[in-house]
Amino acid sequence: MIELGKKVVVTGVPGVGKTTVINGAMERLAAEDIAYKAVNFGTFMFEVAQKENLAADRDEMRRLDKAVQKRLQQAAASGIAAMSGDANIIVDTHSSVKTPAGFLAGLPEWVLRELMPDIVVLVETDPDQILMRRLSDASRTRDMEGSRAIAEHQEFNRAVSAAYAMYSGCTVRIVRNENFLLEQGIDDLVSVLR
Amino acid sequence: MIELGKKVVVTGVPGVGKTTVINGAMERLAAEDIAYKAVNFGTFMFEVAQKENLAADRDEMRRLDKAVQKRLQQAAASGIAAMSGDANIIVDTHSSVKTPAGFLAGLPEWVLRELMPDIVVLVETDPDQILMRRLSDASRTRDMEGSRAIAEHQEFNRAVSAAYAMYSGCTVRIVRNENFLLEQGIDDLVSVLR
Amino acid sequence: MIELGKKVVVTGVPGVGKTTVINGAMERLAAEDIAYKAVNFGTFMFEVAQKENLAADRDEMRRLDKAVQKRLQQAAASGIAAMSGDANIIVDTHSSVKTPAGFLAGLPEWVLRELMPDIVVLVETDPDQILMRRLSDASRTRDMEGSRAIAEHQEFNRAVSAAYAMYSGCTVRIVRNENFLLEQGIDDLVSVLR
Repeated sequence: MIELGKKVVVTGVPGVGKTTVINGAMERLAAEDIAYKAVNFGTFMFEVAQKENLAADRDEMRRLDKAVQKRLQQAAASGIAAMSGDANIIVDTHSSVKTPAGFLAGLPEWVLRELMPDIVVLVETDPDQILMRRLSDASRTRDMEGSRAIAEHQEFNRAVSAAYAMYSGCTVRIVRNENFLLEQGIDDLVSVLR
Repeated sequence: MIELGKKVVVTGVPGVGKTTVINGAMERLAAEDIAYKAVNFGTFMFEVAQKENLAADRDEMRRLDKAVQKRLQQAAASGIAAMSGDANIIVDTHSSVKTPAGFLAGLPEWVLRELMPDIVVLVETDPDQILMRRLSDASRTRDMEGSRAIAEHQEFNRAVSAAYAMYSGCTVRIVRNENFLLEQGIDDLVSVLR
Repeated sequence: MIELGKKVVVTGVPGVGKTTVINGAMERLAAEDIAYKAVNFGTFMFEVAQKENLAADRDEMRRLDKAVQKRLQQAAASGIAAMSGDANIIVDTHSSVKTPAGFLAGLPEWVLRELMPDIVVLVETDPDQILMRRLSDASRTRDMEGSRAIAEHQEFNRAVSAAYAMYSGCTVRIVRNENFLLEQGIDDLVSVLR
């Protein structure tokens, strides 16, 4: 039997420290000779758009027709799934994205169907901690929102991930990235990825 | 490229003031020359049932065989989707309906598949405010339930809407209709519909 | 018209007293001459695995290839659905199972599609009561978790059940099994099953 690679989707609201936790876990796993390839869904999708001469930058991609975007998402999902044929994959993306029109699912049906992830990880922490991290991150300009709105976003992420679990059979694992406890968060993610 | 009309589903538990917010938003949009047609899903479905001589009134429709109801729902969804070919549509319906057998999804898979909404709006407010509005509305007899049950219903609506987001790719937007702040609620809905 | 049997899925986290409530309800219904057959999903699935000589015990079944497990789940769902042709069925299973890799949906898409339940019941109670019941149940060794983790599990169960409602059109009914109020819980379940 051919052992296929694991497909683990790692998600979290902006400012929760998702990338820090992923990088920490990748280092730890590399030291144990467990190879994971990390792929950013948005970047991968943009590369597909570039190859097809559909967009020169990400803003252009966002302005593409809805049906074209859908096709690009599907192509990205299928490309990432193909990569897992000979590697374990971490897909760095969002459970949902907050837009002016509301929460948008990061893994809609046509993405899930192609990707069929094994695990969806939600990196979470206290909304107030997230707020403080956003306030102290001068390097990015983010639309500001209060703790209550952040809590609402995290709750929506859990709900939409439950729908992912129903549709794809993936497990949904919450990994907490608390202040002063980054190592604990990394440990948790490593235990899921190992 | 043919610009298709927006399909916006507006939902909310009984007593939250959904219709008031919709009517206010429609007026405001009309003044801006943005045309929306509002369709009540239940009414539209009943008209389909009448045309097929399946039901003379709504009670009769509710007593129809489950498979027939399903077909009627699907026909209604597909009819409404067709209307959006030359108009923006607001679909007035429920995220979920509370029945003696539990919460029933307002947009089950076979409806979503035909309708493919762009946005699902949840009109919400504090459960206690909803309770008071129901108590003071003498014009309707409603099954009474306490604030906690209303809170549970609103939470279920969020969860099931997350599933709608996964399956159809729609966004999910919460619009609050707080006491004394109706204009704010209307503003929010207008900004989504504009 | 052939009146098909009801398919009611009854779920609840370990220690909530699901089986006690089911047995109480079955007794009450038998006294009213309403016949229900109770099927444990895991047991039924294991019997399918045995018939196909795929597993001699449940541990072996759990170690089967993921694709084989999926096929067995689907076969079990379709077998149970067939039973409902001439009986009302209670399916005893979990909304989600807590695994080291996270929450796993008890009724993933391929199970739902075959089973198409009418109602999914969530037997719930206060997380602290569940904790105490687990602590005092010496007959089973369970992985211990605190009240907060139990609350999180129950919340995930609600969210994933909302996805079941979207996909299959089933209703989702919460039945509480509070300390000292077992009869009330049984009454509630009976009213759903009657």
